[in-house]
Amino acid sequence: MRAIEWRDDGVRMLDQRALPHHERYVDVETAGQVADAVRTMVVRGAPLLGIAAGFGVALAARRSGAGGPGELVEDLERAGTAIVTSRPTAVNIAWAVRRVLAAAQRAVPGGLEAVRSAAVDEALAIAVEDEQSCRAIGALGAELVPDEARILTHCNTGALATGGIGTALGVIATAHQAGKAIQVWVDETRPLLQGARLTAWELKRLEIPMTLVSDTAPGSLMARGLVDLVVVGADRIAANGDVVNKVGTYQLAVLAKRHRIPFYVAAPISTIDAASDRGGAIEIEERNALEVLEPLGLRIAPDATAAANPAFDVTPAELITAIVTDRGVARQPYRSSLRDLVRAAPGGRAWPWEAASA
Amino acid sequence: MRAIEWRDDGVRMLDQRALPHHERYVDVETAGQVADAVRTMVVRGAPLLGIAAGFGVALAARRSGAGGPGELVEDLERAGTAIVTSRPTAVNIAWAVRRVLAAAQRAVPGGLEAVRSAAVDEALAIAVEDEQSCRAIGALGAELVPDEARILTHCNTGALATGGIGTALGVIATAHQAGKAIQVWVDETRPLLQGARLTAWELKRLEIPMTLVSDTAPGSLMARGLVDLVVVGADRIAANGDVVNKVGTYQLAVLAKRHRIPFYVAAPISTIDAASDRGGAIEIEERNALEVLEPLGLRIAPDATAAANPAFDVTPAELITAIVTDRGVARQPYRSSLRDLVRAAPGGRAWPWEAASA
Repeated sequence: MRAIEWRDDGVRMLDQRALPHHERYVDVETAGQVADAVRTMVVRGAPLLGIAAGFGVALAARRSGAGGPGELVEDLERAGTAIVTSRPTAVNIAWAVRRVLAAAQRAVPGGLEAVRSAAVDEALAIAVEDEQSCRAIGALGAELVPDEARILTHCNTGALATGGIGTALGVIATAHQAGKAIQVWVDETRPLLQGARLTAWELKRLEIPMTLVSDTAPGSLMARGLVDLVVVGADRIAANGDVVNKVGTYQLAVLAKRHRIPFYVAAPISTIDAASDRGGAIEIEERNALEVLEPLGLRIAPDATAAANPAFDVTPAELITAIVTDRGVARQPYRSSLRDLVRAAPGGRAWPWEAASA
Repeated sequence: MRAIEWRDDGVRMLDQRALPHHERYVDVETAGQVADAVRTMVVRGAPLLGIAAGFGVALAARRSGAGGPGELVEDLERAGTAIVTSRPTAVNIAWAVRRVLAAAQRAVPGGLEAVRSAAVDEALAIAVEDEQSCRAIGALGAELVPDEARILTHCNTGALATGGIGTALGVIATAHQAGKAIQVWVDETRPLLQGARLTAWELKRLEIPMTLVSDTAPGSLMARGLVDLVVVGADRIAANGDVVNKVGTYQLAVLAKRHRIPFYVAAPISTIDAASDRGGAIEIEERNALEVLEPLGLRIAPDATAAANPAFDVTPAELITAIVTDRGVARQPYRSSLRDLVRAAPGGRAWPWEAASA
């Protein structure tokens, strides 16, 4: 099973809206169609969104009728902008678009076809690297998991959310494969039910024991001593270690803190947005109220009910035991530990304030 | 609208499972049918369950073919046992059954018809008193509400949960009627969606401004400063002030504490179970996993997914700002403040350890 696939004739995406009941695919051929698929959540999950975004720009490169390399780069920039604005919170989208655009720009001296190839090659490289990154996160994270552990996770962070085994779910899968006795608590993750629909589906395929609970139950589980650790993914990590992730994450972190349960975040280094100093400054996407009012199309509230639907929340760094990245495990204080990991990454990025003071 | 009604030919209940889309009624004629209606949640809400339980024993009194008053009391005891075991957590059920049985027993010297009348009269008195009790809770609770308040509530605690205007929702309605500028955040309250289905329906009828959110969002709302107070009901209150209420309540209390938001519990004095020393000793009903897996009959998880479905959780007394009863507002330390309220109640009950030490 691949959540996204680069093909000769376009990009094929597993339509995650139809899971777990139907395995159906959406084929797209243009960057605009990729932006639509991102917006409507055919694909979701921060790392997978990065891959999709890269593929989107690569599709634009393949289809562009530009007469020269400069014109092609302009086409790619337009395509990238459309994709970046399709969902505002996951930083991986902008990160991947920037990477593909930079590769294209570097290739301009080589001419039109060089730019085209560079864009496609860079997009494919992002996908390959994400697969490796998941393996690294899984291995590092699994070391933090006791030999027997009842693990609570939120939303979906597995093969459906990445180009590999997943981030938080990759940690769980790796610990399970290492022979640890893992049991997973999956919360359903309203409004879009990624836990009930997607994580349950993945864990079943992986044959990892799991139990679904409603989003009202994690506190009760923790109070009864039934949770040994929590691991979640991230859509964006600020420079100070604040984590923006699927709405509901913050509540779990507060509860874990009260019960002295380790709370881990697992994410690739590309999720760290050093330009965001703190989580509170990051834009939180407000999605359509119908996602709350009509789960899977079934109306649960009276007519004309108002609903709010923030898609993400901010978990303050102080509540996070460790952040597991593909380049190492960061601990408090995150401002320095995250900076060190970003610096050490190959082809590493400068930490913004270093650039500013340089 | 009445959630339950005593009629010449039986008891009529508004079928709360069908709301908000259908207003449909269930007519029952026997105590066994009342027990079934309680178990399947045709009716729910601790105070309303007390009324239903009393009506159930009264139905048994009306229909019994007993030859004498002693035999009739035995019939009522059997009926009462069936009703009490239908749901284990809400103490109001056992409380109401005990009250009706005690009235029946007192009437034994008067003969068969006196016992029959006593049971029916006591059941009707419970319903009337609950209506008065709701008004008292509403008035006392409304005093705690600022002139402008964004109030978060959980589950359903209104006219559908009581014999009157409700407990927590009665507080909200009374504050609104007093001219305070109230806005209500309603969480959907999975698994059975009492917030989305029932509280939204009631608030709409009351024309009180409300916004529905998923159960993953309250932490985010509080962190953004959008909640001024929380008010919830209770299914059972232990002698030390621990509150057993709909699963998800505990999480809200932990979050409210972190954000220094007042967290109020509103419940009639009959919800206080002085025989339960602490919340941890109270049986938490585990309900059918299908309620989690199939909200309103719609399957959200893959086949063969395991699910846990604790119906209630325990909120420790330390997290509760005040408990609003029909007899006064209790504050910490609850062991003494609740005892004083119970003692002062008319026809008051002895506090168990006083009885033991007397």
